[in-house]
Amino acid sequence: MYVIIIYDAAPKRGAKLLKFLRQHLIWIQNSVFEGEVTESQFAEIKSGINTIINTEKDSVIYYNHGSNTYVERGVIGIERNAMDTFI
Amino acid sequence: MYVIIIYDAAPKRGAKLLKFLRQHLIWIQNSVFEGEVTESQFAEIKSGINTIINTEKDSVIYYNHGSNTYVERGVIGIERNAMDTFI
Repeated sequence: MYVIIIYDAAPKRGAKLLKFLRQHLIWIQNSVFEGEVTESQFAEIKSGINTIINTEKDSVIYYNHGSNTYVERGVIGIERNAMDTFI
Repeated sequence: MYVIIIYDAAPKRGAKLLKFLRQHLIWIQNSVFEGEVTESQFAEIKSGINTIINTEKDSVIYYNHGSNTYVERGVIGIERNAMDTFI
């Protein structure tokens, strides 16, 4: 499955999320990550996020696509991280 | 089509984007918007973004899905803006 994860967390936990998510997904912009993962990897990522964030204060949104072929992705302005695999 | 738009802009232009995108899409979190739009509305939104941002400094990413039925959306932690229409 192809997932997009966007977080909105306090700076200290945000830094931890950045470090954690970099190990599993591709950093896109600011607090946005994307990547192809298996179902069990995705479960592991969600569980990791849960242990890092304060679930009463922080917010992490995910979009789970069956595959990236359903999605058109574009950038207006500069591309913070060029993704050869996508465009 | 169903689009997700995430921006990363300097504060002044970010505030303008927030105001502009609120008129066309649903605010989700931080600098994240979603919504069902027609092809011409989406063209209008992209053109509006272009006039607001500094294309050499800011970055706006969009994901364009044929329809929201292809996507599973979830939140870990708090939901900044509850979307009854989606979940």
